Amino acid sequence: MRLRLDLAYDGSDFHGWAAQPGVRSVQGTIEHALSMVLRTEQPLTLTVAGRTDAGVHARGQVAHVDVTELAWATVAQNALRRLNRLLPDDVRLHAIEPAPAGFDARFSALWRRYTYRVCDNQALADPLRRGDTLWHRAWLDLDKMNEAAAACLGEHDFAAFCRRRPGATTVRELLRLDWQRAEPGVAVGTVVADAFCHNMVRALTGALLAVGDGSRPAAWVAEVLAAGVRDPAVRVVPAHPLCLEEVGYPPDDQVAVRAELTRRVRGA
Amino acid sequence: MRLRLDLAYDGSDFHGWAAQPGVRSVQGTIEHALSMVLRTEQPLTLTVAGRTDAGVHARGQVAHVDVTELAWATVAQNALRRLNRLLPDDVRLHAIEPAPAGFDARFSALWRRYTYRVCDNQALADPLRRGDTLWHRAWLDLDKMNEAAAACLGEHDFAAFCRRRPGATTVRELLRLDWQRAEPGVAVGTVVADAFCHNMVRALTGALLAVGDGSRPAAWVAEVLAAGVRDPAVRVVPAHPLCLEEVGYPPDDQVAVRAELTRRVRGA
Repeated sequence: MRLRLDLAYDGSDFHGWAAQPGVRSVQGTIEHALSMVLRTEQPLTLTVAGRTDAGVHARGQVAHVDVTELAWATVAQNALRRLNRLLPDDVRLHAIEPAPAGFDARFSALWRRYTYRVCDNQALADPLRRGDTLWHRAWLDLDKMNEAAAACLGEHDFAAFCRRRPGATTVRELLRLDWQRAEPGVAVGTVVADAFCHNMVRALTGALLAVGDGSRPAAWVAEVLAAGVRDPAVRVVPAHPLCLEEVGYPPDDQVAVRAELTRRVRGA
Repeated sequence: MRLRLDLAYDGSDFHGWAAQPGVRSVQGTIEHALSMVLRTEQPLTLTVAGRTDAGVHARGQVAHVDVTELAWATVAQNALRRLNRLLPDDVRLHAIEPAPAGFDARFSALWRRYTYRVCDNQALADPLRRGDTLWHRAWLDLDKMNEAAAACLGEHDFAAFCRRRPGATTVRELLRLDWQRAEPGVAVGTVVADAFCHNMVRALTGALLAVGDGSRPAAWVAEVLAAGVRDPAVRVVPAHPLCLEEVGYPPDDQVAVRAELTRRVRGA
């Protein structure tokens, strides 16, 4: 049977989501706790909606894992409490439940929503939020950034903002990209897409910050996008202000069809 | 001449505000940076509005320091930038400016405002905020807490909620004490008083949390207050969710009078 896990983590002290030998990863940390609580003999492997890079946080990450019915039945009632007691403070499990038929945390997802948090007024810098906030030296004109962002919406080849991987498509559908003042001195960018290629959010954000602080005109971002090749003038901004906020799925009776469709499109 | 400093810090890695030999304090850290930038021969001593304990944070702390006119004139133009470059990431100076005549960061203050941040729903726990949030095991009834809190408003002898210090008064005027939902799963308590005695906010909060989670009736807090002696049933809650948000001062032309008045009342 398949379980769906909803979780949050502070990415600061992890080498990203993906388990790798010899480093502390979110995946490895959770798989270890799961194998302790479920007392499994075979190793468990988590599949995740958003494979976050080193330093990137999550408030609404989703993963799935396959376990035996017996293993789950034994612990179901207090699995959440026991797992959170085992997990370190920088990872919190919000829910662990049997998944609907055909659910796949990665391939059933319709969209991922990320935020990027920037403080653009040093006189308001909050040291308590330095773990998930970029301190930007100059004031940001959000109207200009939103003008530039609007030109990126829809389906495009985002090769200009992606680290190229042989054989992988860089065509993505950008559903939302805008910036708002969350509080005085703090601008938060929100980006939603069906999926993201590597570095895409951080490169797009870097381009938009250059527009916001006046280094580049608003039209520049659309020009870079249209050129379709990685532009060295686009700065890939740091990872620590980036957070995976939410993953969207279709209704339960459509998760299987959606997973099948995505697998075909992404050529998995 | 006297300078007013406005500053913020993450208290996690400090042994409180007050400089002590052999430990990392906020005061010591800032005094060191000031002496570097102002190139003073004599040691500088900061006077602070709220002497926060180990682990307590500040977003709106105020301090003053006396320097020579010459030392200030030399660096005034870029003192803020240079100090922030020298200071570690967990302290940010928001402003440093000549203070109005007769200003005293401690004695001119009319009130201090603190917040206390509690997450009462494990399924919404945000690991990114674990540095300034208490994870409370049970849901909190804020209506009951606010009922209990209202009974503490006004001038009282808060001996029941203070660590006693010989010769010091425990009479304080509580100007505000209430709890609100900041976001789903997060309750924030706000407390404003002319001044606080030691442990007062954390003991009051501990009493109110016991009311909020149903361990005690709302009337219990007023009973403890009226009894006027330290009650071992009142739990002093942890320091890390506590933050000094703001210090209130009178208009510039009244800061000297206010300082004189406070000195007389507090018997400094």
